[in-house]
Order: sequence, then C-alpha cells, then structure tokens
Amino acid sequence: MAGKPDSTQADLVVTGCTVLTHDPDGAVAFTEDAAVVVRGGVIDRITPAAEADALPAAERIDARGQVALPGLINCHTHAAMTALRGYAEDVPVEEWFNDWIWPVESNLTPRDVELGTLLACAEMIRGGVTTFADHYFAMDRVAAAVRESGLRANLGAAFFSSQGPEGRDASLEFALSHRGAAGGRITTSLAPHAPYTVTDADLTATAEAAREHGLPVHIHAAENREQTEAGLARDGITPVQALDRAGLLDGDLLIAHGTGLTDADVALLAGAAGRVGVATAPRGYLKFGWGTTPVRALTRAGVPVGLATDGAASNNNLDVWESMTLTALTQKAAEGDPRWATAREVLSYATTQSARVVGLGDAIGSLAPGRRADLVLVDLSGPHTQPVYDLAGTLVHSARSSDVTTTVVDGRVLMRDRRLLTLDVPAIVGELTGRLAALTDRGHDRRIQTYRG
Amino acid sequence: MAGKPDSTQADLVVTGCTVLTHDPDGAVAFTEDAAVVVRGGVIDRITPAAEADALPAAERIDARGQVALPGLINCHTHAAMTALRGYAEDVPVEEWFNDWIWPVESNLTPRDVELGTLLACAEMIRGGVTTFADHYFAMDRVAAAVRESGLRANLGAAFFSSQGPEGRDASLEFALSHRGAAGGRITTSLAPHAPYTVTDADLTATAEAAREHGLPVHIHAAENREQTEAGLARDGITPVQALDRAGLLDGDLLIAHGTGLTDADVALLAGAAGRVGVATAPRGYLKFGWGTTPVRALTRAGVPVGLATDGAASNNNLDVWESMTLTALTQKAAEGDPRWATAREVLSYATTQSARVVGLGDAIGSLAPGRRADLVLVDLSGPHTQPVYDLAGTLVHSARSSDVTTTVVDGRVLMRDRRLLTLDVPAIVGELTGRLAALTDRGHDRRIQTYRG
Repeated sequence: MAGKPDSTQADLVVTGCTVLTHDPDGAVAFTEDAAVVVRGGVIDRITPAAEADALPAAERIDARGQVALPGLINCHTHAAMTALRGYAEDVPVEEWFNDWIWPVESNLTPRDVELGTLLACAEMIRGGVTTFADHYFAMDRVAAAVRESGLRANLGAAFFSSQGPEGRDASLEFALSHRGAAGGRITTSLAPHAPYTVTDADLTATAEAAREHGLPVHIHAAENREQTEAGLARDGITPVQALDRAGLLDGDLLIAHGTGLTDADVALLAGAAGRVGVATAPRGYLKFGWGTTPVRALTRAGVPVGLATDGAASNNNLDVWESMTLTALTQKAAEGDPRWATAREVLSYATTQSARVVGLGDAIGSLAPGRRADLVLVDLSGPHTQPVYDLAGTLVHSARSSDVTTTVVDGRVLMRDRRLLTLDVPAIVGELTGRLAALTDRGHDRRIQTYRG
Repeated sequence: MAGKPDSTQADLVVTGCTVLTHDPDGAVAFTEDAAVVVRGGVIDRITPAAEADALPAAERIDARGQVALPGLINCHTHAAMTALRGYAEDVPVEEWFNDWIWPVESNLTPRDVELGTLLACAEMIRGGVTTFADHYFAMDRVAAAVRESGLRANLGAAFFSSQGPEGRDASLEFALSHRGAAGGRITTSLAPHAPYTVTDADLTATAEAAREHGLPVHIHAAENREQTEAGLARDGITPVQALDRAGLLDGDLLIAHGTGLTDADVALLAGAAGRVGVATAPRGYLKFGWGTTPVRALTRAGVPVGLATDGAASNNNLDVWESMTLTALTQKAAEGDPRWATAREVLSYATTQSARVVGLGDAIGSLAPGRRADLVLVDLSGPHTQPVYDLAGTLVHSARSSDVTTTVVDGRVLMRDRRLLTLDVPAIVGELTGRLAALTDRGHDRRIQTYRG
C-alpha cells in the first residue's frame, strides 16, 4: 500500500556540488558544498549540502565534485537543420543559401523537420542546453520534438513575404495555438525571416499583431555588414532602422546575429521602448569570414546579449558551451583587448542575459528560489580541467560541452551520467539517414527564396 | 610451454574502420572498411577489413563505425605549464609574463615540471595527440614523463641569454644526451627562447651547434606584430631576419607562432636552405587579441604549417583537435574568405604538415606502410556528428577531441574506450594540487626574465 507522500518530500535533490549563483546585483558567484532542492519543477532553495542530507526526496543526485549551472540557452537556432549538418561547406553565404540550402529546403517534409529536431534535441541535451529559441518551418513538428525530448523552447514559425499573407497568418496562428504547450515549456514568437525578405508592410503588420496578442518577435537582422550596406543603398536605412520604422522595437524583440550593427543601430536598440535582445553565434561568423556581433557596445548600451549556435547547417554543431568560449575569444580579438570579455562577463551572457533575450528573464537563467529547475552538472575532474584556480575561467576556457554529465529541465532529468533518458539517437539517425537522398535532391529548379543580402 | 610466435602474427590489428590516408600527391583521402596491421611498432599495411579477419594478432581492436586517423601532433607546447592552467586570465601578454608567469616560474621545481607534464600527457592522450614538441625547463623530467606516458615527443631545453653560457650549454647537453631515448620516441632540439631574449651571438652559436651535431632548433619568433615592430625599431631587422642572420634558416628550424611575420619574412622562410616550419596555436592569439599566423601566405610559399596549443597557462587546454577547428575558422575569418582553409586543407596541416614541422615527416603524420604506428580512433556516432555528408568536414567542424576513443603510439595502446592505460590522473592531480601554493607564491621579487616584446 503506497503511503501518502510526505508533504516535506522534495521531488529532486542535487547535492554536494558547487552551485553557480548570482549576487543580488546579478554578478556570477559560486556557492560551494551546496544542494539544489526542487519541488514542482521549481527551485525551492539552495542549501548547504549537509542540510539536504536528511531531506526526503523522490530522486537524489550525488553531485560531489561537480558544478551545477543554470542550463544553457540557445538563443537562436534552426534545430531541424541538423539534417543538413556538413552538407554545404567552405562556401560564401550567397552560395550557401542560393545553391545549397534554399533549394533543398524546398524538399523538406514535416517528418524531416521532426527528425532533424529530435537529433538536435539529443545533441543539445548532451551539451547542457535546456532551452532553445527556434525559427523554422513545420513548427508543429518542432513542438512535437520539444514535447518528446523534455526540453524548453521558444518557437517561431518563419515566413517570407514571398509566401503572400499566408506566411504571416500561419506564423501568428502557430504562435497563438502553441503558446503554453508542453506543460508550459513552450513559449512562442512571431518569426518574420529578415528585413531583406519581409516587406516593410509585413514587418509593420507583425509589430501590430505582436502588440495585439502580447507576443514577442524573433527575426534575423543585420546579419553581416553587407546586409547593412545593401539596406542603406536600397532604402537609405539600415535593417535595424527598418525594424524601428515598423514599430518592432516597441515590443519584445529577439534579433539574431547583428554583426552588421552600426553605432547608431546600437543606440536605437538601447533606447527601444520594448525589451530588445541580440543573439550572437560566433562560430558561423568566423566560418563565413564576417565580423562579429558588437557585444561590448551592446553591453555598454544596456542591451542584453544571448548566446546561440544558429543552425547546424552553417555552425556544424549546436554547442552553446562552445559559443560561450568563442564569445570570450572572439570578443577579445575583435576589440584587441584581452581584459575584455572576462570569464565572469561571458558567464553572465550564458545565464541571465540569455534568459532575458529569449523572453524568460524571470523564469530561467539563474539557480535561485522560484526559478524553473533547469540545470546542468559539469564534471571538472578530467585532466583537461585541472588544476582549478578560478572556477569561472575553468568553465569558460577549459571545460567543454562533453563535460556535462546531467541535464535537468523543470526538475526532470533528461540526461544522467551522459545517458540520454528521453531520446533514442540510433533510431532517430537511422530513420533520418534513409531520408537524406530525397531531402538533398537538387534535380529541380526550386528554391524557397533567393538571397540578395 | 609457450609456442614459437607465428611469424605471420601481427602485434595489433585495428579493423573495420574508415582510415584517413593520403594520396600519392599528399591529398587527404578516406579508405572505407579497412584494417590497419601493425608489426614491430610500425604500420605493416592497410588492408580491406575482410582480409584482416583471418590474420592472427596479439591484440585486436574492433573499430567498426569509427575513423582511424594519424595521431595528432602538438607542434609547440610547454606541457608542464598545465600546472598553471587558468592561473593568469584576462590580461595582456606583458602582464601575463611579467606579473604572473615569470615570477612563479622562478619557483618551479623538477617535480612540478614532471607532474605538470604527466597531467599534460594524460590530457593529450585523451585528446588524440600522439606526439608533442616541448620547449621548457627541467627537460629531463619532461623526458621521464614521456617515457612513462608512452607518448612521442621532440624535446628542447629552453634558455635565455640572461642565464649566461650555461643555458646554451645545458640545452645542447640535454639534446645530445636524450636524443633517441624512450625506445626512439624522444627526439631533441636546441631551444633558444626567442630573438628578444637571446642575443645574436647566442643565436649564431646555436646555429653552429645545430649544424655540428645534426640537431634541429625550436624557437619562438615574431609571436605578435608588436615584437616585429620592436625588432625593427631596436635593430632595424625583423625577428625572422635575426634568425636568418644567425644562420638558423640554414638548418632545421621550428618557429612557434609567427603572427607577426611580414611578407618579406615569409619569402625568407620559403627560400631557406634548411627545413623550416611554423607552428600555429590560434586559441591564444584570439585570447591575447593578436592577429593570427599568415597560414595562407606560408602555404602558398611552400612552408609547412603545423598545429599547436602552446602551454595551457595561456591556451587553457592542449586540445590539438580544437586547434585544427580554430585554424579552419580563424583562417577563413582572417582572410575574409570562406572558400579558404577547407576541411581537407586543414587535415593536411594536422597530419603530414605537422609531422614535417616537428622533423618527423618520414616517420609519422600518415597511416601508410613503414610509418610508425601512431593512430587514433574517433567515434562519429554521437548526435553532434550525425549525419555525415563528407568525412573531412565532419572531422574538422563537428567532431571534437572528446570523440577520440583510442590512442596508439608505436603500436602500443595508451587509451582504449577512453580509459587511460599508462597514467593515473587522480594521483597526478592529487600530488600536483598539494604543490600549487608553493608554486604560485609571488611573495618575492624574482622573475626568470622580463618581457619587453
């Protein structure tokens, strides 16, 4: 006979670890020999480990020697594009879009999207990601993969103006029908592709729909310097000025990339009435030979910066840990200043700032009472992470995603001791691999769009 | 009664894998469903897997689904500096040397060097490195760690002219007494620190000693643009011109870094009478906010480029796989050309070119009959490395050092299924950690040298 659950019983206790916490002023700190107590999917409290020893718990993880961090947040990706990982290498962005990606995306089926997203979710869980912001097609299939994987996501159905009003309508319909799905783990955004593929009229209508329905907007803008220059030459304004003119800066807005942001654009973002954030995905910028996001200028202007990977078709992985490391490295290089982008600063991008960028600043991004119990455990006992002088530096510059042992979302363990508990990778890869020939058939003249920058 | 060994028995057969090979013209190729047959520490042959099934072997590794590559080569490191991993972060190079590293290096004991090197060897074996070129102090202790770990190394005892003639003499004595040690796994070099810390007279004497004794020379030069400019301002010549004037370009020479190389320097290296190579360690250049090694210019000039990590005190890891990936990424960014530094080009730096740079171009760097049996196996079944469209791209841009399962040097298995077979990491870390307080004591005015660039 099952007894009545003890009302003091926790759902999950993670104990004996060092916990990355945040000071009242938001600075990254570390609390040693601590326990994280979870109830109802929420962090109940962070206690000294000894106090948690006697606490009854449905599930207990002995995390001695490990560090607990807020789960990483992938602020901009196209998860399903893992199906095209490594498909188009060593080419400039115009060729990447026009000759490779946009032709094969015209072959995409909903099942391709679902399988690609499931594979992406497996990779992200193994890499310590607990939330991702996705911008793609067949988003109901992405939502299904989120449900199955146990991850948290903000989802937006992408559209181009070339689709006619149907694209915009479908993006709104998806956002309204799926927000709050998967037990609240799914939030939604409107997702116009970019100012160079969506008309001013559609951007304005998107801003109005966002305001009317209380939805955020997720868009690519000023991806590179050439796009900014092209916008200036064509319309006399930058992509960010186009967003502003459409009213998109008056609401919640997630801008992906922004390597082509001007100083004036940064000032415009800083003065925005809405909550505006920028997602940076530094690996792809190196690969395409672009500059990088002006993270220091954004930070000084008070605009939150989140970490991202973009899709695996350009980035080759969904490794937000690597994005964290590369943000530190490429920001120092871009500014010519080794004192900038310290490990602690970069950990703030990875945690609280990324949470704000995906519109979940009050819910995730910090291990504190009342926040959702999204956390990862990292093992620093490997030879590549020893000795440890300062944990922040070790995390940013020596540890890597493969050191994540355990991934937890809403208090549910999705990976334990590196074993995935919700997804079957061989089955996903097996089915996906059988579909790649059809997916990558370019024996037709279709492409879903033409890149002109 | 032990029978006479079957004369046809192989020492090791690695079977069922895809093998990275090189075409007769040196281009990277892949041979599927193959076996590597090892006898006497040497690759006997690469055969179709089916032919190896019946072959008697003392040891057999079933590598189905894995890729066999030549072991990675770390062309420039200071292995013992893993003891200082993460000790001095977010500072410019002058401060890094003068306020942090050179003061504490005055505390170094031979045992610190040995333990730091053992930790480094553990990290390198786990990361698929089979050979490293080391430039440091107390090199007999480094040699001891090489012997114990089973790795291959080229070792040079570093010296400054500030040490007087003893430094130069000790470097020569070490090189002569240790070459061929550890069953031939150890080769040696003379190791003047750099043109800015070693006088012209000492550089000239080093070139003469190298010629007399048939030794290569390993030196830092033109590490950054400021050093080149300082050399021009002080002496009217660049660091590479100083090497040339000393006669060092007439023999075998390994130049570390070279991010400050001028076009004229590259031409000088291309026309050198000796075998000259350059080691690039891109992570640290980003971190210090420098430019990077002019790899394209060197390649076009016919100068081999090898991959390196430098020491972990600046690079934070000894991850040559990451150096390979970052070379692809940063070279594309530096040239603004995504078509450059293709995955296959970068794999040639990682294999045959790195072998030439460390003076072992005929012995390692390629899996071919007659070469030493230094190889690693990589598992590409993880979600982050699927699907595979082109193996070269998957290896360079998706796989990472933690995907290496098995590391073999001279036919001896040093790691199998990620388990280290020669080194005890907890014991090494335990003893090293107890020594860090003494090692990092800066309550004195000593430093081993002063950096002026």
